[in-house]
Amino acid sequence: MREAVVINDVGPRDGLQNQARILAPAQRLELIRALIGAGVRNIEVGSFVSPKAVPAMTGAAEVMAGLESAPRGCYSALIPNLKGYELASAAGVRKMVMVLYGSEGMARKNANMGKQQAEVVTEDILRRAHADGIKVSVAIAVAFECPFDGPVDPSEVERITDHFLQLGADEVSIADTIGAANPGQVRALTTSLVARHGNERLSCHFHDTRAMGLANVFAALESGIRKFDASIAGLGGCPFAPGASGNVATEDVVMMLEQMGYDTGIDLAALLEAAQLAQTLTGTAPGGRSTAWLKRYVSRVKQQEKT
Amino acid sequence: MREAVVINDVGPRDGLQNQARILAPAQRLELIRALIGAGVRNIEVGSFVSPKAVPAMTGAAEVMAGLESAPRGCYSALIPNLKGYELASAAGVRKMVMVLYGSEGMARKNANMGKQQAEVVTEDILRRAHADGIKVSVAIAVAFECPFDGPVDPSEVERITDHFLQLGADEVSIADTIGAANPGQVRALTTSLVARHGNERLSCHFHDTRAMGLANVFAALESGIRKFDASIAGLGGCPFAPGASGNVATEDVVMMLEQMGYDTGIDLAALLEAAQLAQTLTGTAPGGRSTAWLKRYVSRVKQQEKT
Repeated sequence: MREAVVINDVGPRDGLQNQARILAPAQRLELIRALIGAGVRNIEVGSFVSPKAVPAMTGAAEVMAGLESAPRGCYSALIPNLKGYELASAAGVRKMVMVLYGSEGMARKNANMGKQQAEVVTEDILRRAHADGIKVSVAIAVAFECPFDGPVDPSEVERITDHFLQLGADEVSIADTIGAANPGQVRALTTSLVARHGNERLSCHFHDTRAMGLANVFAALESGIRKFDASIAGLGGCPFAPGASGNVATEDVVMMLEQMGYDTGIDLAALLEAAQLAQTLTGTAPGGRSTAWLKRYVSRVKQQEKT
Repeated sequence: MREAVVINDVGPRDGLQNQARILAPAQRLELIRALIGAGVRNIEVGSFVSPKAVPAMTGAAEVMAGLESAPRGCYSALIPNLKGYELASAAGVRKMVMVLYGSEGMARKNANMGKQQAEVVTEDILRRAHADGIKVSVAIAVAFECPFDGPVDPSEVERITDHFLQLGADEVSIADTIGAANPGQVRALTTSLVARHGNERLSCHFHDTRAMGLANVFAALESGIRKFDASIAGLGGCPFAPGASGNVATEDVVMMLEQMGYDTGIDLAALLEAAQLAQTLTGTAPGGRSTAWLKRYVSRVKQQEKT
């Protein structure tokens, strides 16, 4: 039996909110259903934030409502505060994602509050969620480097992780938000975190800006991490930075993991079709870095199945 | 003091011989000089093979002659047999590269002889070269997977490595010729090889076909490998397979190593200019995967130096 690795596709949230083109809830549902069809069981389906601040996430409740009849899946949604929590839980979300920060600069820029204050808000919601039987995943943004404050001290990320796992967070996700981490850093930090907490409640989130996305996934795997965020077709990045890559592409990560002998439960051919859909819908998704090879591989496998 | 990692740029040979456009010796010299200018000390400058079989390498002696006055560098050339050895040594080559094979199918296709016969030819030249005071690097092609015979048994690669290091080869290079290896395989094989032989005479050669080039470099680094082939602008691949990536790009590898704290002795800004030259000369080189980010980084550093 192959060892399982969990893939959480954040394309419908982290990916789409960074695209120039805004998709209607029905289009986002189409993409999410394609992911479900490919066997992706964990999906970040949207965020419950101000539609003025993030127009791309308008109608997140509609998206959730459309998923009611889906046969399986673990749908999470990002929330910034208690108001978001109430909207999301009314919409049926049973796993909330809250963002913390490795740096003060990013907290102020992204959440308009200090990083300490963001932690207090998250602590409050964590208590409330557990009383309500709702799961909470805590993402530590800019866990390696901040575009405003520079390198982030690993001991600060360890402190936040220790604190929130102690409080009972269901997951802490170590996020290289701007794709600045190198695999040496990732290996060192994840080794330390897994040694302290085991791997059950730890996850990693990488971007491919400097082409080190898969190297960082491998570095974390070496340390024992078995849960990863990824984004279909590499959706994400910033529409205002030409050529900037987004999140590491789900199809690249799944290909590597399956070739390494891990079981993701995901069908690569169907995943490539979901990636094509993401590209068609957004008009800008870069697609995975291994797509040219993957397409030849998938068509070869289909040919063999026929004969 | 930072630990050194040796980069051997194989673009002028492995890269250019796979391009649709054939460059004149003067153009290849221009590219090699750009690499030397960026601080690349090890370069595979050409091959001494039949001009009919590989038209792109015509005039390798001319290239070597043009390098006589270069201030430094360790120039190697690929040779297929004794005739190649004589031509190369007459042209002043002091490091020969010979290719061995992980599979029978690739040996027959590439060298038109059995893999065992290729080993005998290499043994003969190794003896001759050592008598002449010339170094020999042995590359094991398709060390992980062969496009004709499928997966390659790691114990076969270990056998060839053991044998040629015992015979006194100056280097054995483990080559993932078709970019099929995953970092799990690379980690396992290089761990075993470094445990048996140390890292002094071992090198790795990766292609980026499935986007795992940097992940594989990191996997080998983890095992203790400190010498890597790479190709400027990712030159290589196959002109008949659209979208197929070539060798892992030198600029990607150098960026990752320098960010990890290793010393390659290479200047990234000058290397990017060499990559641009490679793209201009060939019209097809894909360029590194991190180029968009690297360009912004280099221009930011230059800006800071001005102020």
